[in-house]
Amino acid sequence: MKILLTNDDGIQAEGIQTLRRALSEIADVTVVAPSYERSATGHGITVHKPIRAERVKLKGSDKEHWSVVGTPADCVKLALETLLKEPPDLVVSGVNHGANLGTDVLYSGTVSAAIEGMINGLPYVAVSLYDDSFVDFTFAAQFTAKLCTLLRLKGFPPSTLLNVNIPGSQAHDIKGVRVTKLGSRHYINTVECRKDPRGREYFWLAGDVVNVEGDGDTDVDAVRNNYVSVSPIHFDLTNYQVIDTVKSWGFESLLKEN
Amino acid sequence: MKILLTNDDGIQAEGIQTLRRALSEIADVTVVAPSYERSATGHGITVHKPIRAERVKLKGSDKEHWSVVGTPADCVKLALETLLKEPPDLVVSGVNHGANLGTDVLYSGTVSAAIEGMINGLPYVAVSLYDDSFVDFTFAAQFTAKLCTLLRLKGFPPSTLLNVNIPGSQAHDIKGVRVTKLGSRHYINTVECRKDPRGREYFWLAGDVVNVEGDGDTDVDAVRNNYVSVSPIHFDLTNYQVIDTVKSWGFESLLKEN
Repeated sequence: MKILLTNDDGIQAEGIQTLRRALSEIADVTVVAPSYERSATGHGITVHKPIRAERVKLKGSDKEHWSVVGTPADCVKLALETLLKEPPDLVVSGVNHGANLGTDVLYSGTVSAAIEGMINGLPYVAVSLYDDSFVDFTFAAQFTAKLCTLLRLKGFPPSTLLNVNIPGSQAHDIKGVRVTKLGSRHYINTVECRKDPRGREYFWLAGDVVNVEGDGDTDVDAVRNNYVSVSPIHFDLTNYQVIDTVKSWGFESLLKEN
Repeated sequence: MKILLTNDDGIQAEGIQTLRRALSEIADVTVVAPSYERSATGHGITVHKPIRAERVKLKGSDKEHWSVVGTPADCVKLALETLLKEPPDLVVSGVNHGANLGTDVLYSGTVSAAIEGMINGLPYVAVSLYDDSFVDFTFAAQFTAKLCTLLRLKGFPPSTLLNVNIPGSQAHDIKGVRVTKLGSRHYINTVECRKDPRGREYFWLAGDVVNVEGDGDTDVDAVRNNYVSVSPIHFDLTNYQVIDTVKSWGFESLLKEN
């Protein structure tokens, strides 16, 4: 099995390196990852400027890997279009430092990187560790390696990304695995208004996460209760449930001259 | 009606200024928009550095508007949390220079800005003009003003964004309005590998849009056939159709020690 591995915390991050070692036990892994941390900024694709990609050696691997001055989506695109000699069977991103739950998925680099993979018809697994202060990525990495083996066995549902979140607990405290829907999670942002040394105003967003209590079936609920969460995700944002209502509003009348 | 107006092409763009004038006929409009073009880069929220926001006067308006050195999502967040004295009834973004169709919606600044609004329970309308070489935003702006009036009358379905795309045609050539689902659209990226003056390699992504032929009901199809497209969008990416299949894969076995 050939795996393309990326992340948005940067190629030297503990999460991706632990995962690389675990995946190397079961697959031929090539890392193509951002040269530095790209989380929370710089998503999307870089089109207005050139992208640098440098061959790097990683500890314990005699393979060629790539450090890219670009976003996670740039990494996947560049890997698939030009850097990899053969297409991979699977794209994996992670282990992300910090959770990627509910609406966070839309903000994260995961979605745009996954779309790049899926345009090419590839399955995608995104793995995140809930607690970024819990620095032991071993369980998360080993779980992911087993998951990839299982997925290869079962086959992938088309156009689906599996978004995996792992609780930040010791392995023996993890209660099980739940297949979940995306929950709701948002940030309460007490915007702070400050003055710079010249007396001019500036603002700083101070975001605290609020996990909205779900019905028990959400990714947020699963991880909070010490379960590994696996959410199948697709990229059709159409709200089919309201299409008929919206049609009944009579938009055609808007085209008439008043 | 109080409207918060933003965009990702920057506050001085023709699209937003034409829309501001049209909306001012029907509502009390405050513009809070990026100081320069942010499309295709810099989405998400700015948390790692301060954000500047400056009061600006706009031609023909005696109101106070804001130019923000930040992303569209920053603009909406800052507006709702601190800049606006009263919450708006509706958030509008646009008129975007260029279409925002199918999977593009996920890449665009629209989604993260809309989430900011929706967290606060506000309806959101995103308007884009298909052809960015067609510089007459008058029809798009007038249509949007009428749409906002209609929406106020009909009420909004909860947690839904209306994504509106307007063909780049003369008003009299537009055939009608279609309520659509999101189609598929992707970029063929011939990655160009070049050498810099020092002989080092760099890459440049050259993206050409490919509109995938839909079943006739998609936003891509509507705009291509000269219809205004209105797509109701929600933010639950869960792929419910495959949840039972995924559950049957037996993830629990992955937790066992080998």
